[in-house]
Amino acid sequence: MSFTYKHPHPAVTVDGVVFGFDEADLKLLLVRRKSEPCKGAWALPGGFVALHEGLEEAARRELREETGIGELYLEQLYTFGDPKRDPRERVISVAYYALVKLAEHSVRADSDAAEVAWFPVAELPELAFDHERIVEIGLKRLKAKVRYEPIGFELLPEKFTLGELQRLYETVLEQDLDKRNFRKKILGMELLEALDEYQQDVAHRAAQYYRFNHQRYEQLRKRGFNFEL
Amino acid sequence: MSFTYKHPHPAVTVDGVVFGFDEADLKLLLVRRKSEPCKGAWALPGGFVALHEGLEEAARRELREETGIGELYLEQLYTFGDPKRDPRERVISVAYYALVKLAEHSVRADSDAAEVAWFPVAELPELAFDHERIVEIGLKRLKAKVRYEPIGFELLPEKFTLGELQRLYETVLEQDLDKRNFRKKILGMELLEALDEYQQDVAHRAAQYYRFNHQRYEQLRKRGFNFEL
Repeated sequence: MSFTYKHPHPAVTVDGVVFGFDEADLKLLLVRRKSEPCKGAWALPGGFVALHEGLEEAARRELREETGIGELYLEQLYTFGDPKRDPRERVISVAYYALVKLAEHSVRADSDAAEVAWFPVAELPELAFDHERIVEIGLKRLKAKVRYEPIGFELLPEKFTLGELQRLYETVLEQDLDKRNFRKKILGMELLEALDEYQQDVAHRAAQYYRFNHQRYEQLRKRGFNFEL
Repeated sequence: MSFTYKHPHPAVTVDGVVFGFDEADLKLLLVRRKSEPCKGAWALPGGFVALHEGLEEAARRELREETGIGELYLEQLYTFGDPKRDPRERVISVAYYALVKLAEHSVRADSDAAEVAWFPVAELPELAFDHERIVEIGLKRLKAKVRYEPIGFELLPEKFTLGELQRLYETVLEQDLDKRNFRKKILGMELLEALDEYQQDVAHRAAQYYRFNHQRYEQLRKRGFNFEL
């Protein structure tokens, strides 16, 4: 079958920049390409948009098909359209980005990928196409947003210690934070709920668990409150 | 001439959301469509991306061809890909947004548009395709950015009074601001340079002119300063 147009048309793909966090590392979800071009190279999960599907819908389908990841919150990141970014033809890619709780998303290589894995952002392999650039833009967005929206909580498990929360912020922002200031600021916003639970099996003093209060955040936001860290 | 592909391809366009400001109104640049579909309707300036050109390059070319606007700062806004947004075929549109100093950009309808005009954002005509939605996203971005980046100054003439600056913020944010607080905040950031010039031909007390100090802003930014209003 073939498709004919009066004017040349580009191909359009979607790519997913999916971040996860586990204890100490910010991680990125990658797949190993099964076919040419760049066969065998690591790449962002993604693929061609079908004519009948929306862009976000295509991104979800590709993530599901290539990595087994189901429901997740996706946000459009940026559209990459350098005329030479793909050796096959003119391919424009709409990138989406997502933050997931690592523990809740087991991944498996599905039909379209040879392999799938989480890589620490600090130790990424060489990536296919312009995917390094796409990841760079994704990290920039993450760093900018983490200061103004409580997105850190999307990367953490339901229950977390203040130490874990601080490590997440330090990892994303790539800078050390003063422990006392950090706690004062984060607790001062009154968005965390202290639980009557403590770490177990730790040698040092067991830290208390906290939970993010989504409801309270929505209430505050309606009154004009801005999260800021 | 015709172009044949093994898989169906969407068409890709660019659209420009160009904001300007004059004294009291936030304005949007629109063109009247010369051809079908939506012939005669007002729309965002834009058109099809050529295979050899980058997306931003295409947006600049379309703005030049349809409105006569030359150099301007463009930023990618969002990509719109609803499968039914264009009656002709699947058309994905990458929208760009720009802020211009109205006085410095005279516009004229060029080859591809029947007419071109600035409309107050509060009184827009009915727009072609999903362009109302695109404008909505553009306004949302503008409102969000104006608080965290000194983009207001891109919309004002080189010299402005504090009253004009406040009106700009009030217009973009759609809320009244307390005059004393506003002046204290904006002068406190030390980004404005008071000029030895005053309004002329005014019945009331002549207001002083100010200028935005770009160099100082860049210096402060390097030291970690965040603009915030």
